[in-house]
Amino acid sequence: MCVICIDQPPLHELVTSDFIASISSCHVLVHLLVLTTCNYHCSLFNNSIFVIVSHTIKNHLEKMSPLSINQVNEMEYEDFISTFGNVVEHCSLFAAAIWSQRPFHGVKQLHKTFCDFIDTLPKLGKEGILRSHPDLAGRIAERGLLTTESTKEQLAAELNTLTPEEKANLTRLNEAYKTKFGFPFVICARDNKKAAILSGLEARLENETEKEVIQGVEEVKKIAFYRLLDILQHEEAEKLIGGW
Amino acid sequence: MCVICIDQPPLHELVTSDFIASISSCHVLVHLLVLTTCNYHCSLFNNSIFVIVSHTIKNHLEKMSPLSINQVNEMEYEDFISTFGNVVEHCSLFAAAIWSQRPFHGVKQLHKTFCDFIDTLPKLGKEGILRSHPDLAGRIAERGLLTTESTKEQLAAELNTLTPEEKANLTRLNEAYKTKFGFPFVICARDNKKAAILSGLEARLENETEKEVIQGVEEVKKIAFYRLLDILQHEEAEKLIGGW
Repeated sequence: MCVICIDQPPLHELVTSDFIASISSCHVLVHLLVLTTCNYHCSLFNNSIFVIVSHTIKNHLEKMSPLSINQVNEMEYEDFISTFGNVVEHCSLFAAAIWSQRPFHGVKQLHKTFCDFIDTLPKLGKEGILRSHPDLAGRIAERGLLTTESTKEQLAAELNTLTPEEKANLTRLNEAYKTKFGFPFVICARDNKKAAILSGLEARLENETEKEVIQGVEEVKKIAFYRLLDILQHEEAEKLIGGW
Repeated sequence: MCVICIDQPPLHELVTSDFIASISSCHVLVHLLVLTTCNYHCSLFNNSIFVIVSHTIKNHLEKMSPLSINQVNEMEYEDFISTFGNVVEHCSLFAAAIWSQRPFHGVKQLHKTFCDFIDTLPKLGKEGILRSHPDLAGRIAERGLLTTESTKEQLAAELNTLTPEEKANLTRLNEAYKTKFGFPFVICARDNKKAAILSGLEARLENETEKEVIQGVEEVKKIAFYRLLDILQHEEAEKLIGGW
């Protein structure tokens, strides 16, 4: 039982934007806060975690509207990290690395900056990126402990509607993939529904490790692009993936 | 006001090792838990955060005795990341990257594996490592939001005993350093007391950026070595820094 309670006036005044920024790197908390604000004020989640959030937190989360590139370029470093630290799952180092490349000129160019940095990493680093991703519909998802971004993506792929047979099949294939390659299967879930994911996993299991590192990292780049589209204001045309 | 309450039987049975592992990446929580278990059961911290932890959590934390290298080599991936994810501050990617280099043969060789990986990174990546570190006695420390490891290190350097004049001087020098180089001043606080830190900062402020990236990264490697000594069983002789 985990109760996170931030709602007793006048103490909620302590929930400042600094406080929000400081817990933003704290995925479990933020994930819970985002989920629970959907139902407002209190929510029973995953049968084990009960969360109460304050008006203050709710208001802060509602204020998270897409940013202009000018707002990004004017950000303090800490805000930049709390905003872009999970564009590549669990790799806030990447946002820290590209910080010095400001000013950015838009979604595509910011995305390219992330991708260019990823491309400079040695093979171990690329494998590390893949290992920082959760299994699709795996144990972390079952426990409700995915990052907010991954939760959204796995729901978009309808991985919450797997039949018991599909679930068993996915678990088996995920394990076989990890045993063969030493990192989990990564695919851009927003580009694929569950049937495409299952068949993609089966097909990619046949690849050589070298090819799978490349393919996995390409999927990470697609995931990063969608995450940037969620954060930044952009033109409709910029949504076209593959044009970077 | 933030209440984290994990103590109501029979619900505390939900606080499994999996749960602990899942919140280990969550530095704010872990930091609070570690601090509060010193006083057991409940503690007023930093005048704003009240934490109650259960027997279960306390017992788990007490069980964290130094690991043998065999235990490390037999770890599941998730345990490896929750144990070594902050050997380099806020860069769990590094532990994820070197996972495939098992088996490790001891503290020094594991440390060398981390260092070798750091050395393969491009300059932007090394700057990113430095930017992932907090200012010494800076805002994050003031808010009690350092990682557990950084808290311990900044206390070891007696940065909690700065006079108002020393504090003002450190803040001024830190800001000048960040303005010049674009990343914070990083020094192994366990090797230096506050006077050495202040004079070191003043001296290094004169360097060229290129040299400071190299120097900062060398300090990161020393910090990592001490963090590994805290986690792993080792011979007295292995404590000698610089011999890797």
